[in-house]
Amino acid sequence: MNMPENDKENLAMVTCTGPVNIAVIKYFVIDIESGGKRDEDLILPINSSLSVTLHQDQLKTTTTIACSRNLQQDRIWLNGKEEDISNPRLQSCLQEIRRFARKRRNTGDSTSDVSSVSHKVHICSVNNFPTAAGLASSASGYACLVYTLAQLFGVEREQLSAVARQGSGSACRSLYGGFVQWKLGERSDGKDSLAEQVESESHWPELRVLVLVVSAEQKSVGSTFGMHTSVETSQLLKYRADVVVPSRMEEMIRVIRERDFPAFGELTMKDSNQFHAICLDTYPPIFYLNHISHRIISLVHRYNQYYGETRVAYTFDAGPNAVIYTLEDHLPEFVQVVRHFFPPEVNGAEFVKGLSVCSTDLSEELKRNINMEPMPKGIHYIISTKAGPGPCVVKDPNHHLLGADGLPKKSAVSH
Amino acid sequence: MNMPENDKENLAMVTCTGPVNIAVIKYFVIDIESGGKRDEDLILPINSSLSVTLHQDQLKTTTTIACSRNLQQDRIWLNGKEEDISNPRLQSCLQEIRRFARKRRNTGDSTSDVSSVSHKVHICSVNNFPTAAGLASSASGYACLVYTLAQLFGVEREQLSAVARQGSGSACRSLYGGFVQWKLGERSDGKDSLAEQVESESHWPELRVLVLVVSAEQKSVGSTFGMHTSVETSQLLKYRADVVVPSRMEEMIRVIRERDFPAFGELTMKDSNQFHAICLDTYPPIFYLNHISHRIISLVHRYNQYYGETRVAYTFDAGPNAVIYTLEDHLPEFVQVVRHFFPPEVNGAEFVKGLSVCSTDLSEELKRNINMEPMPKGIHYIISTKAGPGPCVVKDPNHHLLGADGLPKKSAVSH
Repeated sequence: MNMPENDKENLAMVTCTGPVNIAVIKYFVIDIESGGKRDEDLILPINSSLSVTLHQDQLKTTTTIACSRNLQQDRIWLNGKEEDISNPRLQSCLQEIRRFARKRRNTGDSTSDVSSVSHKVHICSVNNFPTAAGLASSASGYACLVYTLAQLFGVEREQLSAVARQGSGSACRSLYGGFVQWKLGERSDGKDSLAEQVESESHWPELRVLVLVVSAEQKSVGSTFGMHTSVETSQLLKYRADVVVPSRMEEMIRVIRERDFPAFGELTMKDSNQFHAICLDTYPPIFYLNHISHRIISLVHRYNQYYGETRVAYTFDAGPNAVIYTLEDHLPEFVQVVRHFFPPEVNGAEFVKGLSVCSTDLSEELKRNINMEPMPKGIHYIISTKAGPGPCVVKDPNHHLLGADGLPKKSAVSH
Repeated sequence: MNMPENDKENLAMVTCTGPVNIAVIKYFVIDIESGGKRDEDLILPINSSLSVTLHQDQLKTTTTIACSRNLQQDRIWLNGKEEDISNPRLQSCLQEIRRFARKRRNTGDSTSDVSSVSHKVHICSVNNFPTAAGLASSASGYACLVYTLAQLFGVEREQLSAVARQGSGSACRSLYGGFVQWKLGERSDGKDSLAEQVESESHWPELRVLVLVVSAEQKSVGSTFGMHTSVETSQLLKYRADVVVPSRMEEMIRVIRERDFPAFGELTMKDSNQFHAICLDTYPPIFYLNHISHRIISLVHRYNQYYGETRVAYTFDAGPNAVIYTLEDHLPEFVQVVRHFFPPEVNGAEFVKGLSVCSTDLSEELKRNINMEPMPKGIHYIISTKAGPGPCVVKDPNHHLLGADGLPKKSAVSH
């Protein structure tokens, strides 16, 4: 347990960081049969899913939680702004962690230096990436929250999947680094619907990730209707969940273990497309992909077709931004391809953030074969990253986001 | 048989018109299992489909076919331009019709005034709608071709489904007016995969149709890859064909018979969305809808939501243009809604072609509730029409597209 204590204030404080994850086998959280056996409030998925945890050097949430008998009430600050602590998902996480901590103490499992579960907490959390990146900050946010609470109150990691899931389904996958599966499970109470690591972040060092942030003004018209109710109407979803995904999970785990990029890439693209197909098959339909997304998809297929193999793969979550998987060797050329077909407003590090990418020239033959009209400013910027570790404890107390008074430091607005 | 003869030239000539149809239950023509039992060359569908035949006053193909022992070779002119008669689909239709005609003569079924099957033909065909309308001119084209050939050579209407299908799958549905189903059939030779009328064009006189022609410059990026190979890769398609469509066909026939617009509209929209979902689930994926299509879909759902009932329904084929079904009573308001949210470049009859639509005012409340940013010039123009009859013989010889010399008249470029 890492828990610096401020004796004067009797303030226990822990800071942790948590990663973003990007699914390569997507999930839907719903109760497909009304009155069905799986409970929506528990956030149980209707199929297993699998994701890559991204490196926190580029994308992370940092969370500091302070705990003291002197604090009057639970409070939370997100990216510098105080938010309503009564948010039901937040409350579920707090209650569940406290429940696990009490249970552990009652059974005498607890170490001595953990904080009192009955004390109020102050939570301060910042992301080092803008919301505009369209990355599911709720996954890193809830994973980091739950992990930090667990440090403070003394709850074991094995128990955190079920808690993080109450915040945001995919948050449970951000509790581990590398390649992570979230198993469907069979129990109606969801106790066996847990995340587990398939391979660690060091398993496939050549694998690289690009987040292509689509220009804000190019956002699609969006949907009037939430995914929640709509997804219940897709007739194809049940078939996907029951028949397609189980075999895809097996295949995905195999190709990751074998580091078979062409197979990994093709399956990733197929599953992204099927996810968006299901969104379109809901009623009313949901469109997350816009015309820039369509162009990125087309560009990737034309690039792969030119080489006669899958060198680059895309995946899209609930928004128009693309996440690209590729291998280190192909990264410089593909970034140059993106730069050529989406001429950016800004250049250099302004356009490609994160892990540096060597510059390279494109052959005229490649450009001619791709045969697309360049679309200036279609992509705002790129974040270059790779697979990374799960949540970490930050030991240096200078990095706490809360001061000795239990309130956010001036610097804790964003990292 | 209507067959004016020019004695001097010994030229038999028939002119017919054929309609466009718009499917409300969509089909895919493929062999989903490689080595499967259904033959692709025969153009057999993998599921039944159902369409509405549109009125020829607004949308039709006109075809004149001349036949004489003096003609040297088969020739074809489409919209004023001579095309290659060796097109395999065209050849299939010609051969099949001649085969049926010979069989009929051999069995003594033929009437005396039909042309000799062994004579060469000149075919001249024009559409009264631009290709830009994105309507499947191949359906009206092949239906009209086959119907006209049948008049010339004496083949019965019941035999034409299988012939028209060889030209273009959906052409067989254009052989009848009103509401037409194309039954899947069970035989591997496709002999029972035939179109038949469900209800005639007079069954539901209040039903109205709008074709929203999306601006040409707004066309989507398109696909590098054809539907043919791609569709074979959709894992969801088999489930759609085997499970979803059979029950939808039954329901669609029922709601058409009952003239239940809300049920008809909802099912039409769901099936259009599922068709495009399957396109997205193919590999590489196919996108026919662009951002204007997405906006039209959103507009229709918001409009229906405002009234708390399905008053308007969309359907999209292999392109971005929408076909809207609605009832006469709701037509003026919905056209005004389209005009408001897609302010046109041109007004009046330039914007709404075809059946006249009364003008009306929109309430501020409706506009406020729809709550979309207007998109100027997103829709190029509207064709207003309704359900109509099947192919017809044109009796007036002045309307022949070919002259007494068997060559296209100067006026036969377009109608």
